Amino acid sequence: MSKPLKIGIAGLGTVGIGLINIFNRHDEIIEAKAGRAIQIKAVSARDKNANRGADLSAYQWFSNATEMAASPEIDVYVELIGGEDGIAYDSVVAALKAGKHVVTANKALLAHHGSMLAALAEQHNVALNYEAAVAGGIPIVKTMRESLTGNEVSRVYGILNGTCNYILTLMEQEGRPFDDILKDAQDEGYAEADPTTDIGGFDAAHKLALLTSLSFGTQPSFKDVYIEGIEDITSEDIAAARDLGYRIKLLGMSQMTDSGIEQRVHPAMVPKHSTIAEVSGVTNCVAVKGDFVGDVMLTGPGAGAGPTASSVMGDLIDIARGLVVPPFINPAKDLKPYKNAKTRAHQGGYYIRLDVVDQIGVLAAIATHMAEQKISLKSIVQKLEEGGNTDKEGATIVMITHATLEQSIRDALAAIQKDGHLVGKPQMIRIEQL
Amino acid sequence: MSKPLKIGIAGLGTVGIGLINIFNRHDEIIEAKAGRAIQIKAVSARDKNANRGADLSAYQWFSNATEMAASPEIDVYVELIGGEDGIAYDSVVAALKAGKHVVTANKALLAHHGSMLAALAEQHNVALNYEAAVAGGIPIVKTMRESLTGNEVSRVYGILNGTCNYILTLMEQEGRPFDDILKDAQDEGYAEADPTTDIGGFDAAHKLALLTSLSFGTQPSFKDVYIEGIEDITSEDIAAARDLGYRIKLLGMSQMTDSGIEQRVHPAMVPKHSTIAEVSGVTNCVAVKGDFVGDVMLTGPGAGAGPTASSVMGDLIDIARGLVVPPFINPAKDLKPYKNAKTRAHQGGYYIRLDVVDQIGVLAAIATHMAEQKISLKSIVQKLEEGGNTDKEGATIVMITHATLEQSIRDALAAIQKDGHLVGKPQMIRIEQL
Repeated sequence: MSKPLKIGIAGLGTVGIGLINIFNRHDEIIEAKAGRAIQIKAVSARDKNANRGADLSAYQWFSNATEMAASPEIDVYVELIGGEDGIAYDSVVAALKAGKHVVTANKALLAHHGSMLAALAEQHNVALNYEAAVAGGIPIVKTMRESLTGNEVSRVYGILNGTCNYILTLMEQEGRPFDDILKDAQDEGYAEADPTTDIGGFDAAHKLALLTSLSFGTQPSFKDVYIEGIEDITSEDIAAARDLGYRIKLLGMSQMTDSGIEQRVHPAMVPKHSTIAEVSGVTNCVAVKGDFVGDVMLTGPGAGAGPTASSVMGDLIDIARGLVVPPFINPAKDLKPYKNAKTRAHQGGYYIRLDVVDQIGVLAAIATHMAEQKISLKSIVQKLEEGGNTDKEGATIVMITHATLEQSIRDALAAIQKDGHLVGKPQMIRIEQL
Repeated sequence: MSKPLKIGIAGLGTVGIGLINIFNRHDEIIEAKAGRAIQIKAVSARDKNANRGADLSAYQWFSNATEMAASPEIDVYVELIGGEDGIAYDSVVAALKAGKHVVTANKALLAHHGSMLAALAEQHNVALNYEAAVAGGIPIVKTMRESLTGNEVSRVYGILNGTCNYILTLMEQEGRPFDDILKDAQDEGYAEADPTTDIGGFDAAHKLALLTSLSFGTQPSFKDVYIEGIEDITSEDIAAARDLGYRIKLLGMSQMTDSGIEQRVHPAMVPKHSTIAEVSGVTNCVAVKGDFVGDVMLTGPGAGAGPTASSVMGDLIDIARGLVVPPFINPAKDLKPYKNAKTRAHQGGYYIRLDVVDQIGVLAAIATHMAEQKISLKSIVQKLEEGGNTDKEGATIVMITHATLEQSIRDALAAIQKDGHLVGKPQMIRIEQL
């Protein structure tokens, strides 16, 4: 039996405590599977005296995570602090430079600094494992890094944020507006007090940047992800989607196109009977298309203490077994330069909702602007707002387009807006035939 | 750069040729990901002169696979012959004894001889990889062997045979009988000329035996799998399932119960809106429940040249990277003795269809036998056969039970059958609330 693998955990929030719980419950099966003991030797967090409901007395306490990261007490540094910079960044760099393996759940850190950290890990011949950073308990990083390696990947997409999926699911099921559901989600712990990272699409974009790198052998590049959140989705859009045979999901999608790699996070209408439409609540999913394997989809819990800690533990057992692979499949020095396709070059169908003042000629003006951009309409419906046909009331126009260029849609909407007939901003949601 | 990994492929059917196609198309990306070249050095099959649509002239030909398996020309033996004994068994044993890594797609071989072969592989410190043996292109073996290792698994289930799922899907969609659809499936290449292995449930049982071992740390044991095929499912059952809000799937299910591990392959009624019910055609899926991760499901192509070869390639790249783990997670010597739960101890709901002669008192007799076994009925429907109420015509009785013991159902059906009112055998299909 080899000597024990010694780990240090930085960050003792729900995931950190979840990880300690796995050790407490499954000490024996972990040792059997890993072929050696894995021992928590040290922990670090901001406040030593916080009540976390776990006995930490057996572990050495570090008030400075960076100091723990480089300490001779540990072989593996587990970073569960979060954030793209600051202490998370400093401590991970310190650990890698000291020749420690690193396991992290930190998507923001890797989406911003992945190539550099991967190079550092490879230089020191240690693992940089991050299964927990993408879609929680779903083993998508290992699947892409080790299972689908014989394939050329052409597309990866998924539901990558549980908070958004929970809100959209409840908006549809209960017919209540976004703000109401968000408030409930915050009360129930499904959304943060400051929900921007989730509902603005940034969390999903961090994960998508990593999936893109794993799919196409490119450097992870958060800044190249086009991002729209779900905050402007209204009950009206949800109802219109249902009537049209769709559901609205916050989609993360990365695909190889003729003009480069298209990488985008935004609300999308997906067919009601597609597999992704059936993924509801806080559940996540990731689908990969490879040239030999075809379409593979993984579904499971995208967040939470247990699932995230399960992924961290899988990463740790890999290290205990001596399994080390390059963080982004190919050696960091070979990660290809990134050719980014502009979102305005995207081709697809669009749902457009315009709230307009109810005047003669408005519909004609709108139709003219669409025709100017050579946009072919599949359907158009004009409804008067409830309240009746008075001067003060307006109307709503919903249009579905055939496949068209996004630039044309944007130009048409800009021209329509300039005419001054709109109440508020135009709504535009991409349609995906998944 | 390390020296190339040399492989020999035995069996040049669709999967073997599919594998050669991946090498031809992706030589460079394989080398980049593996960190070294992987080279086909030798091949073996029954008939050297068969037209396979692939150029084999660069590879050494062995007419004897066992000889190739032990040849100094190769580092890895890829067994794609199939069958639990004979040349497949002999050649894999020879390869392991010669210290060669083995990659195989042979579920029957491992379901019967898995423990012994794993012990042999571990003794010689080589890999025995078999991702392609379970659910084709779906990376479930790696997921269980390496990703979910921090969990205690309580249940694994799935749709493990594409042929059966294809037939059941078409029976429902087209309303045609089993024999018709089977014949079409054979014509279209979705079913073998002798379909027994698939439709009899044996292929799914081989795969389930491996999933059981990976879930519970037990020795794979094909003989402990309870097996029913789909050959007795009628259009009537399919229609009744639909009316009751279910779909019929050939389910492979293994779960830990108070009386041991329940391991069974049989047609099951699953709720129409469950995820598994939506898996249609030749697609497979596997769902695992772990105590920390919760429910994770993998969906994808369960067979075919491309998906199966993709899994073989993933296994090869693992070996090239130096990743070797015990074949069944725990060392072979630690695989636990197997406590098999009897299927008659199964608790669940049941669908029962009885074709009876139309006589006064038959329903009363049947209801009495059910009551004798304390079986609580959720619903009972009696329908006259089309053709009307004559002495020669019969009636059909469909019953749905509340959760009950399988032994009670079997005893009740035996008593009912003894009364002599039945036309043909009683039909019994288990209901699973997945």
